[in-house]
Amino acid sequence: MHTREMNEELLSSLKVNQTRLMEDIHYTCQWGTGEKWGSGETETGMSRLALSDADKKARDWFVQATEALGCHTTVDSMGNIFAVRPGVRNDKPPTYVGSHLDTQPTGGRYDGILGVTAGVEMLKVLADNWVETEYPVGVVNWTNEEGARFPMSMSSSGVWAGAIPLESAHNLREVHPGTATMKSELERIGYLGSVPASHEHTPMAAHFELHIEQGPLLEIANKKIGIVKGVQAYKWLTITVTGRDTHTGTTDLKSRADALLCASKMILHSHRLATTNGCLASTGILNLKPGSTNTVPGSVTFSLDIRAQKDSTVSRMLHHITTDFPLIASGTDVLGSNANCTPGLPCSVSITEDFSSPATLFHPECISAVTSAASSALAELPNSKNLVMEMTSGAGHDSVYTSKRCPTSMIFVPCREGVSHNPEEYCKPEDCALGAQVLLQSVLRFDRRRDEQRVTWKQEPYTL
Amino acid sequence: MHTREMNEELLSSLKVNQTRLMEDIHYTCQWGTGEKWGSGETETGMSRLALSDADKKARDWFVQATEALGCHTTVDSMGNIFAVRPGVRNDKPPTYVGSHLDTQPTGGRYDGILGVTAGVEMLKVLADNWVETEYPVGVVNWTNEEGARFPMSMSSSGVWAGAIPLESAHNLREVHPGTATMKSELERIGYLGSVPASHEHTPMAAHFELHIEQGPLLEIANKKIGIVKGVQAYKWLTITVTGRDTHTGTTDLKSRADALLCASKMILHSHRLATTNGCLASTGILNLKPGSTNTVPGSVTFSLDIRAQKDSTVSRMLHHITTDFPLIASGTDVLGSNANCTPGLPCSVSITEDFSSPATLFHPECISAVTSAASSALAELPNSKNLVMEMTSGAGHDSVYTSKRCPTSMIFVPCREGVSHNPEEYCKPEDCALGAQVLLQSVLRFDRRRDEQRVTWKQEPYTL
Repeated sequence: MHTREMNEELLSSLKVNQTRLMEDIHYTCQWGTGEKWGSGETETGMSRLALSDADKKARDWFVQATEALGCHTTVDSMGNIFAVRPGVRNDKPPTYVGSHLDTQPTGGRYDGILGVTAGVEMLKVLADNWVETEYPVGVVNWTNEEGARFPMSMSSSGVWAGAIPLESAHNLREVHPGTATMKSELERIGYLGSVPASHEHTPMAAHFELHIEQGPLLEIANKKIGIVKGVQAYKWLTITVTGRDTHTGTTDLKSRADALLCASKMILHSHRLATTNGCLASTGILNLKPGSTNTVPGSVTFSLDIRAQKDSTVSRMLHHITTDFPLIASGTDVLGSNANCTPGLPCSVSITEDFSSPATLFHPECISAVTSAASSALAELPNSKNLVMEMTSGAGHDSVYTSKRCPTSMIFVPCREGVSHNPEEYCKPEDCALGAQVLLQSVLRFDRRRDEQRVTWKQEPYTL
Repeated sequence: MHTREMNEELLSSLKVNQTRLMEDIHYTCQWGTGEKWGSGETETGMSRLALSDADKKARDWFVQATEALGCHTTVDSMGNIFAVRPGVRNDKPPTYVGSHLDTQPTGGRYDGILGVTAGVEMLKVLADNWVETEYPVGVVNWTNEEGARFPMSMSSSGVWAGAIPLESAHNLREVHPGTATMKSELERIGYLGSVPASHEHTPMAAHFELHIEQGPLLEIANKKIGIVKGVQAYKWLTITVTGRDTHTGTTDLKSRADALLCASKMILHSHRLATTNGCLASTGILNLKPGSTNTVPGSVTFSLDIRAQKDSTVSRMLHHITTDFPLIASGTDVLGSNANCTPGLPCSVSITEDFSSPATLFHPECISAVTSAASSALAELPNSKNLVMEMTSGAGHDSVYTSKRCPTSMIFVPCREGVSHNPEEYCKPEDCALGAQVLLQSVLRFDRRRDEQRVTWKQEPYTL
């Protein structure tokens, strides 16, 4: 039946199958299983780094599952996999659902995986019910969203959007101590596709992404669905502090240029700045040299991830950091960090900006489709009006890049205690299914809307 | 000529050859050459980790050089090499000079190397001048003094002294990411000797060690020779902070258990405690997990090296640390560290004591021999009375362990800006030679003293 012919009741009656969805999630988690945290069979985390052997197996599953559902699949030069189910008007770009199958090294079973499997579940519901859409519908698995192995998050949707040059992404070298590049690993696992990774070659009419919130707000507020209106701004910095390697036993505190003591003050200071400015600052990587118990470290390099709702807050943080860190290195007392410390010799500091993502606003048509889909999906629950929450995403997602090139929005579901990037990351099966239901309904409503209006929302505003 | 027959003038006329000594130092530095820091040929650091191929070559040189000078060499089960030049009474233990040929990964050309090559130079002076000593004279190269590769410093003099079980030392595994053990590497390079590593099997009448100061005190005070009366106490701790891996973008500051922020506060606090207690606290190693820019670290492990003149100060520091670190982990504000911070979730902390070396007092007879040797060696310099300084060693040395089993003391020479465990570590050629001269004269004077008294200082006080 064509979506056009369905009334609201019929449309809402199309339902995802919770059991089948959860089976798909856990089935795919056999590849790259991580740390065990509970006694249950599915109570383990995930460690499925992008383009690893485990990732290859998950990809193979995705291709087979979508082709078995009547999709045509295409792999582009970044290994992004596009599975498209034909509609009536196949001369027009598909309405896409997308997310990623790669995980953090100590990740969980939902971040990314839920979004892709919910897309496959959508295809199954459409097939089961012989639903005919006006426009083709697609599911995309983006490569290396996490940036955990190849250190640039959302690298492949970034290339698709034209924001990251293909060559830079291909040449990304895996993190220490590996030596492979993204291109060499794409080749190795057989996912270096022949079509260009480009929004021009593989256009999208829209991109919807279902994701766990990865924060505690929905759970704390007792909400079921987050209607995501945008993504916060962020910058990634690398800070290098240079002091002098000296012997710990023979160098009095005054005669030291202790790069780690200095870095510790900077990390504490960045946290204080984040507190004062109502935003986030985090250090997730720290390496020091030479690394010996009885040698004061002469060199420390650490990452700094700054995030805020507004671009202006991120800029202000960057200003504070570039002003204050050299002062801290020189020994100046910034915000009282030096109280009760012995003044030592100065260190030097260098600050590099590796990555910047301005604040993103999602598309009103997509947000509107999600809002009415959520209203339909939640209708049967008690207190259904109070189960949705409009929010801004704290994390970057592939939707940030797609939003530069097509109407985009996201759907969030709660995860336990807001924990993510952790083996214990957990989303209740009923919440996974509810999110998938909103996703399915969003795509159907968007398709109907496109059909009614016979327009594709213009590409013009989508410039970088 | 026998030392007994030499008057003070004749004794003092035995002189080390500065050029030859410096040639030996730089010749041996061809094995394990490290980072270049200047334009000169010898302006590079050293990276000669214990039992590496480079260490094997330096050892081979030591055996060949001492045997060519008429010594008999013995290798024990820890790879310690004892080279002994016969005297008149070879039924008695030799008077030894000792140090080590291994270096830190980013070490210099003098730490350890000066002590061993000055021993070889002593043998050359004795040979050149047909000197006959009453008792045999030896030079020992101790294995893995640095503990940089196999993480226990002075491990092999420790086994010799009976303070470290042979098996523990043999099973020491090299630091990440290697997998070899001390025993496997001793075997591999052919230095797993057949004689027991024991003060009972290889007794010493005394142990003298020449070393660079590794601190700035001699240089600042314009002194040439440090008469070392003992070694400060120290303890090595491993601290593990456990928080929770969470996403940097979606976890507000309140909902984080940030192990690195917590560790940063502890490192800063340990520095403040050291300042307050007039001692040293240093972190040289820090590893975190999982190590991703957008994941708040859930686990941080770091080393803490505490040193003080007195055992009681080290104990007091340990007390403060074991009291305060759990408070910091729980979020309690210790010494105002939390000012302007957002309170987060608690972390937990565990503290392990890996190694403890109580304060060491050297032997009066050895100190006395060094004092008269220094007086003789410096006699020709202007202001000679003001060129010596009594001091306590900040660093541990093999002499700490030998002092448990035989009369021991050390001689320090200044190094540039007190820098050590650094490629730029530097000791002037004239200071190297002056130290070697004091070493030579100390051994000769000690030999004569033994002969006069016909005693071996008792072993009884030397219990651990």
